Amino acid sequence: MSDESTAKNVDPRYKRVAIIGLGLIGGSLGHAIKRGKLADHIAGYAHSEATRKRAMEIGFVDSVHPTAAEAARDADLVVLCVPVGALGQVAAEIEKSLKPGATVTDVGSVKNAVVRDVGPFIPDGVHFIPGHPIAGTEQSGPDAGFAELFDDRWCILTPIPGADRAAVAKLGAFWEACGSRVDFMEPKHHDLVLAITSHLPHLIAYNIVGTADDMETVTRSEVIKYSAGGFRDFTRLAASDPTMWRDVCLNNKDAILEMLGRFSEDLSALQRSIRWGDGDGLFELFTRTRAIRRSIIDAGQDNPAPNFGRNPTHAEPDKSDQ
Amino acid sequence: MSDESTAKNVDPRYKRVAIIGLGLIGGSLGHAIKRGKLADHIAGYAHSEATRKRAMEIGFVDSVHPTAAEAARDADLVVLCVPVGALGQVAAEIEKSLKPGATVTDVGSVKNAVVRDVGPFIPDGVHFIPGHPIAGTEQSGPDAGFAELFDDRWCILTPIPGADRAAVAKLGAFWEACGSRVDFMEPKHHDLVLAITSHLPHLIAYNIVGTADDMETVTRSEVIKYSAGGFRDFTRLAASDPTMWRDVCLNNKDAILEMLGRFSEDLSALQRSIRWGDGDGLFELFTRTRAIRRSIIDAGQDNPAPNFGRNPTHAEPDKSDQ
Repeated sequence: MSDESTAKNVDPRYKRVAIIGLGLIGGSLGHAIKRGKLADHIAGYAHSEATRKRAMEIGFVDSVHPTAAEAARDADLVVLCVPVGALGQVAAEIEKSLKPGATVTDVGSVKNAVVRDVGPFIPDGVHFIPGHPIAGTEQSGPDAGFAELFDDRWCILTPIPGADRAAVAKLGAFWEACGSRVDFMEPKHHDLVLAITSHLPHLIAYNIVGTADDMETVTRSEVIKYSAGGFRDFTRLAASDPTMWRDVCLNNKDAILEMLGRFSEDLSALQRSIRWGDGDGLFELFTRTRAIRRSIIDAGQDNPAPNFGRNPTHAEPDKSDQ
Repeated sequence: MSDESTAKNVDPRYKRVAIIGLGLIGGSLGHAIKRGKLADHIAGYAHSEATRKRAMEIGFVDSVHPTAAEAARDADLVVLCVPVGALGQVAAEIEKSLKPGATVTDVGSVKNAVVRDVGPFIPDGVHFIPGHPIAGTEQSGPDAGFAELFDDRWCILTPIPGADRAAVAKLGAFWEACGSRVDFMEPKHHDLVLAITSHLPHLIAYNIVGTADDMETVTRSEVIKYSAGGFRDFTRLAASDPTMWRDVCLNNKDAILEMLGRFSEDLSALQRSIRWGDGDGLFELFTRTRAIRRSIIDAGQDNPAPNFGRNPTHAEPDKSDQ
C-alpha cells in the first residue's frame, strides 16, 4: 500500500458519470451510484443496442448513446467497463471527447496492460487512474448487476507516477461511497496478487471442468448427479464470462505462467505423496490449509455458514458477504 | 446403475440402529432418523468421551456406549461413520456382537477398499452393504450435523455379488426416508466416479490453497483480502476434515492418480495456450465449461443464485439445495 489514502472529507460525487460497457460490473456500478446519489447524470454506452435499451428499462443509467465518444462527452468521470482486450480501442474512440479535468478509470482485472493500452490515448489535463474492484459473480449482462456488489469488497487503484493527488483521492472516495474499501498498489504488483487470488483459481476451475467433461469412463450425467461431492464448487467460476477471461490470460501472461508453474510443481509433489502413500505429508498439507478459510471469514470476505450458506436452514445471512 | 431398485412398499424402519462415529455424517444421520421416525432406538459410539456426551446433549442418539461392540450389540442396522482408514479396526471390534440378520453399512467415500477391509469381519447371516451418501459440508464434529444434509442428495449403494435383495431394498428405502435419492453401482465404478466428482476437486483445492500459502512475493494478508476474486471458493473444500481426506487418498490411489494425470495433461495444454497467446483455444474451453453448471443447477444439485447465494439480497433459497 502506497502513501496515498482517501481523505474522509473529499466529496465523492461527480456531476456527470459515463459508464462504457453495461454488463455485470457497469450495471452494478450504475445501481451503486444511484443508491448513493453520487452523480447528477449517468450516461451509458454498450456496443449492442439491445443492451443499451435494457439498461434504460432497468434504469441504472439516465441516458444511453450509440457511441462511446458521445457517452463520454462532458463527463467528469468516465468508467471503462468493457473486457480488457477492448480497452485500447474504446480509449481511442473517446480520446477526442474527453473534457479537460475529467477522470478516466477502468475496472479491468489486469493493470499493467491497461496502462500500456489506454495510457497513450489520454490527453494532457485528463486524469487516468486505473482501478479494479475485486467483486463479481459468475453471471453476465445488464440484468446481472446489483447495487450491493461492491459492499465490503476491496477496490484497488493503481495510479501512475505523477498522478494528481486530488483526483486520486476523489476517485477513492467515490469507490468508498459505492460500498468498497479502497487500496493502492503498483500495477505490476496488482497483476501478481490477482494472478494468485483470482486468475489461477479461474484457470484451475475451467481446467478441471474441462477434464471432467472429457471423461470416457464416467458419463457427463454421473458427473452432474454426484457433483455435490465437491465438483460443483468449481463450476461456478468455470461459468464466468469467456471473453473477459480470454483477455485476462492474454494480458497477464507472465504472472499467470509463474503461478501455474508453482501450482504444477506443488501438484506433482502431492501426486508423489499419494503414489508412495505418504499419509503424514498429506495430513500436514490438509491441516494447514484449514487456517486460511478461517482468516478469510474473519476478514469478512466469505460467508461463515457451511456450504457457503447454500442450505437455507443453516445459512446465517451475513451482510458483509456477497 | 444395476437392476436393483428400491421398492416403494418396503418398510424403511429398523427397530434398533447403531451409529458408529458421531461426527458430521453420523450426527446428520441421527437427526434424519429422528426426523423420519425411522428407528425405535439409536445407539451411538464415538472414540472420544466428550463427543459421546455432546451427542447425548444434542439428542441425535438415544444412548451412547464406551465401545463400538456394545453400541452394535442387538442392532438391526449398524452404520459405520468413521474415517475410511479406521473401518477395518472398527469392523474387527464389532464382529462378535453383530446379530444374525442385521445389516452393516458404511458412509465411506471409497468403496473398493471398504469391501476389502470390512468384508472379512462380517459373519455369515449378517448383510454387508457398502454405501456412500454424496453429501457433506466443510465442518466436522457432532455439532456440525443437521437433519436436512441428505435431502435431494444421492446415496450410492454398492452391494457385493450375492447380496440379499430384501436387505438391499430395505437399506435403499431407509436412505430414501432420510431424504436421499438412491443409486446402485459396482464398487470399482463408484471409486472412479468419485475420483473425478469429489476426490480430484478436494485435492486441487488443497493444492491451490497450499500454493497461495507459500508465496514470497504476495503476502498472506493480500491473499486473504483479495480472495473474493475467486480464491475463496477453493478454501471451503480445503477446510474439510484432514483425516478423512488422507484416508481417501491412501485408499483410492489408482483412480486418483489417473484423474490427476488427466488434469495435469489438460493443464499443460492450457498453459501452452496462454504462453502462445492462443485466444481462440482459450475462448473455446471457457465457453464449453459454462454448460455444465447449467446442467447441475437443472438437476437440483446446486443453488441457481449468483455466488452460491452468498448475497442475501440476491439469494433465492432453494429447498433442493444443501
